[in-house]
Amino acid sequence: MAGGRGGSVGAMPEPLVPSTGLGVLHLFCAVAPLTDRAAVEAAVKSAEADDLQVVPVAVLGHKADVAFMVLGKDLWRLRAFQSAVVAAGLDVVDSYVSLTELSEYAKGLPEQMAQARLYPVLPPEGKAAWCFYPMSKRRDPEQNWYALPFDERKELMMEHGAPGRKFAGRILQLITGSTGVDDWEWGVTLFAENPDDLKEVVYTMRFDKASTEYAEFGAFTTGAVGTLAEVLDAVGVTG
Amino acid sequence: MAGGRGGSVGAMPEPLVPSTGLGVLHLFCAVAPLTDRAAVEAAVKSAEADDLQVVPVAVLGHKADVAFMVLGKDLWRLRAFQSAVVAAGLDVVDSYVSLTELSEYAKGLPEQMAQARLYPVLPPEGKAAWCFYPMSKRRDPEQNWYALPFDERKELMMEHGAPGRKFAGRILQLITGSTGVDDWEWGVTLFAENPDDLKEVVYTMRFDKASTEYAEFGAFTTGAVGTLAEVLDAVGVTG
Amino acid sequence: MAGGRGGSVGAMPEPLVPSTGLGVLHLFCAVAPLTDRAAVEAAVKSAEADDLQVVPVAVLGHKADVAFMVLGKDLWRLRAFQSAVVAAGLDVVDSYVSLTELSEYAKGLPEQMAQARLYPVLPPEGKAAWCFYPMSKRRDPEQNWYALPFDERKELMMEHGAPGRKFAGRILQLITGSTGVDDWEWGVTLFAENPDDLKEVVYTMRFDKASTEYAEFGAFTTGAVGTLAEVLDAVGVTG
Amino acid sequence: MAGGRGGSVGAMPEPLVPSTGLGVLHLFCAVAPLTDRAAVEAAVKSAEADDLQVVPVAVLGHKADVAFMVLGKDLWRLRAFQSAVVAAGLDVVDSYVSLTELSEYAKGLPEQMAQARLYPVLPPEGKAAWCFYPMSKRRDPEQNWYALPFDERKELMMEHGAPGRKFAGRILQLITGSTGVDDWEWGVTLFAENPDDLKEVVYTMRFDKASTEYAEFGAFTTGAVGTLAEVLDAVGVTG
Amino acid sequence: MAGGRGGSVGAMPEPLVPSTGLGVLHLFCAVAPLTDRAAVEAAVKSAEADDLQVVPVAVLGHKADVAFMVLGKDLWRLRAFQSAVVAAGLDVVDSYVSLTELSEYAKGLPEQMAQARLYPVLPPEGKAAWCFYPMSKRRDPEQNWYALPFDERKELMMEHGAPGRKFAGRILQLITGSTGVDDWEWGVTLFAENPDDLKEVVYTMRFDKASTEYAEFGAFTTGAVGTLAEVLDAVGVTG
Repeated sequence: MAGGRGGSVGAMPEPLVPSTGLGVLHLFCAVAPLTDRAAVEAAVKSAEADDLQVVPVAVLGHKADVAFMVLGKDLWRLRAFQSAVVAAGLDVVDSYVSLTELSEYAKGLPEQMAQARLYPVLPPEGKAAWCFYPMSKRRDPEQNWYALPFDERKELMMEHGAPGRKFAGRILQLITGSTGVDDWEWGVTLFAENPDDLKEVVYTMRFDKASTEYAEFGAFTTGAVGTLAEVLDAVGVTG
Repeated sequence: MAGGRGGSVGAMPEPLVPSTGLGVLHLFCAVAPLTDRAAVEAAVKSAEADDLQVVPVAVLGHKADVAFMVLGKDLWRLRAFQSAVVAAGLDVVDSYVSLTELSEYAKGLPEQMAQARLYPVLPPEGKAAWCFYPMSKRRDPEQNWYALPFDERKELMMEHGAPGRKFAGRILQLITGSTGVDDWEWGVTLFAENPDDLKEVVYTMRFDKASTEYAEFGAFTTGAVGTLAEVLDAVGVTG
Repeated sequence: MAGGRGGSVGAMPEPLVPSTGLGVLHLFCAVAPLTDRAAVEAAVKSAEADDLQVVPVAVLGHKADVAFMVLGKDLWRLRAFQSAVVAAGLDVVDSYVSLTELSEYAKGLPEQMAQARLYPVLPPEGKAAWCFYPMSKRRDPEQNWYALPFDERKELMMEHGAPGRKFAGRILQLITGSTGVDDWEWGVTLFAENPDDLKEVVYTMRFDKASTEYAEFGAFTTGAVGTLAEVLDAVGVTG
Repeated sequence: MAGGRGGSVGAMPEPLVPSTGLGVLHLFCAVAPLTDRAAVEAAVKSAEADDLQVVPVAVLGHKADVAFMVLGKDLWRLRAFQSAVVAAGLDVVDSYVSLTELSEYAKGLPEQMAQARLYPVLPPEGKAAWCFYPMSKRRDPEQNWYALPFDERKELMMEHGAPGRKFAGRILQLITGSTGVDDWEWGVTLFAENPDDLKEVVYTMRFDKASTEYAEFGAFTTGAVGTLAEVLDAVGVTG
Repeated sequence: MAGGRGGSVGAMPEPLVPSTGLGVLHLFCAVAPLTDRAAVEAAVKSAEADDLQVVPVAVLGHKADVAFMVLGKDLWRLRAFQSAVVAAGLDVVDSYVSLTELSEYAKGLPEQMAQARLYPVLPPEGKAAWCFYPMSKRRDPEQNWYALPFDERKELMMEHGAPGRKFAGRILQLITGSTGVDDWEWGVTLFAENPDDLKEVVYTMRFDKASTEYAEFGAFTTGAVGTLAEVLDAVGVTG
């Protein structure tokens, strides 16, 4: 399986790219007895050389050992990174597929903020506490987000953003869209200074009407962002 | 296991075919250490020689590596393709069974459009972004699709089709019926030019009353359609 | 494991039999590298010699490769068949336990029809399209089947039977009871001439009030009924 | 792993026992290629010598091969039995942890009946049909058992017991408490003369208001109680 | 994989610590054929030398064999313990990530009690019966905890604490926060004298309005706290 991964890049099919923004692939991997540290390092280096961003995370608990949050334009190239990671002996045990986006409530955003959402540069400095969770808006007969008029949804989203702004210096939040491409409608990635910031910001927002009445959450995965070497050390992938 | 798959085709039982339309089998496969590229290629070639259509997809994320969307008349022949794929060393980790159909709301459709639904020719040109998801209509006490009169259902379906028509050039949507044959009532396969078209069309339709109030969705699987060689390359099945 | 399965039949414990009707065991099996075709054939032959009925089905998709629907009086004998199948190298990946029954709504049924429900002879001729699904009646606060008076339930069941009768020549439906013995309240096995009959009959019945408002469905498994040889050929168990 | 299990019993920690009644451990086990019949027999013998009751059951279907229902005072001793069974090569694939109890509705029960609930002697004679299922009381906004006053709950429980009494000769029912110790609030174990008694009693009780409106059920596992030798024979663990 | 775990501690990344309180990692582990008792003992000893608290538990039933409840400041160090346990041959089959906290309803708590919640010393003496479960507050349209005003929530929490106080001598309860870091909003760990105390306290609290109407519970795992040697003996990890 695999082998000359790097060498075959030149032969890849015509790029499959979003019309704006980036593809985002969260890969949650388990270390296995034959995981090859040098091959993992080579896979990341080759991806970065090819204009992908790769954020490595040491995950706490049974859900995974290493997470890679990978961003790039071409879906074929994202898939090539996944195949290289598997060829290096990691098992991909979970994942999330999404795309960066400007939400319909963020139309008038200043250009710089819009760019930061469509083309984020990750990871941020000094924010090693990390979590990821997917979410959808509720469609219950009595509380149906999609049955609300646009103005009401926009107002709820503005209110919802307020506590986020309160945490602005301590938290970087990236919301990527996944309606139609994965099981939930959005993926949320948080980077924070301290682990309890993750808890505090999500707990605080749970009292916003947009969350209280209209949000459904998937599984939460938590870990520590580091250099690739730090992360591989932490999860026991020795040289 | 298996071995003379091809040679035994002549001995297959009496064909088991739908009275109109085609059987559709979505096979989601994981690559394994012993996956044999030549055997996968032979399985696809043999199926195509036998009047099956086979669409290969490189899947993003942990759900699968390769998806095959297979269409054909005879269920025994569809199953033979599955067995050949397994004999080639792929693990079938998920699947969906459905049948092409003309819905009850599409009775007066022009013959050519009816034929395109019952006997589609796949994959479409220039639409390499792909996703599949199953769905059902809701049967909640307060929002029960099956308790609505036909005319109301028909009207909701017409409205629901409108955004689809807006995306017509960029998206090919194939809805196949699975009530009674798999866990959801329909399977939806989308082919798009860009990955964000998949997201935009599904997000847009979520505001149609037919989706907002009456749709339940299963898991979404996303990938890139290519030639079999491109797909096998991308997922690391080398020669 | 196992070995002299057949030889130990004489030493089996006192039969454990329903006071009327038959035990029914649906076994969903995956083929494994060491599956032994001759041993599978011997297990079926031994069961049939011992008054069990065994219906083999080639299953489509990942849920299983082969299904055996087995009917017989003695639960110990049904279990012995399961053990023999495992000893032959098949993995039992799913199953359903039920009992034939005359429902409380079928008290005055003509003797011949009652016998056909309690002691069915399977498989029917010329109906190779097969599916199985379990179901329960809903117990929601607003739609609670068990809170309805008997007469209302009976009337709903009569109405529910009507479309079934419309399909009578093309479909054989066997409903077996599983309240208290498996996770759902009934198991439904359908045999049809064409695969789309399965879809049409289940879709049509979904508009009956008994289904629309009161039915909950489990997973649907679909396949093709054949001779044991045809089924083993189709799923790649060669001699 | 393990080895001198029996010899280390003397060194076990201070007993961990309920203040009244017994600990109950339902272990659902799968036979594996290296299952050692003699070691299973020794594990059961050693447990019985140590004042545990062990009821072996041959399970029908994929959920397990053998179930052991084990009752005893000391949780450390129950765990030791589990470890011995694993050391004998069985895989523990499911389980249920509970405690015998006198419910709050059974305060004035005659001493003998109270003892039979707290210190049951199992299995009963001539009742080889067996099933187990866990259950909880519903806490829906509209039907919330825990929001009812004690007297109303007591009345519903008395009514609920009535059909049980109708089946008294044919069924032995043991309800053990698991709130706080396993995923559901109670475990229900039934022993019956005929397999259809299991179905009839559970179906009949489903029409009691306590079940109709307030019960939620987990998975049902069914099998045949026998001697250890009969059970091991039935599931293919040969000497 | 791993190997010189201990030796690499000096090279660990900058500590990632909560601004107050401790990180808490519940690791649920299965024993495997190659589990190395000495390596497990060394992992625990090394963690304790490094200011982690490690509580070992022998788990009853299939969910796990050994649980480690681990508390410490630095998430990297908690992850290092997990990696050391895996390197010792245990499989981490489940886990829970949380943080000690003072809830918003406990602001005026005496300093000593506040410290006991933020920096607990575990395990308590003479309380070997143990269980863990996660929970969240309900967000149903009709019963939505997060839509209640603070004063009403505080009053419900005070009432909810009352039965807990009744059990004060027999039960130690530690509630840790996990909103944003794991799948539920809180983790609850109970230590009790007798196993039936676990059942009685949770059953009693289920009648508090805060639980009856607003609590959702995850899976409950039960076991016996002991010394590491007692626990490893009990689950069959011999020297």
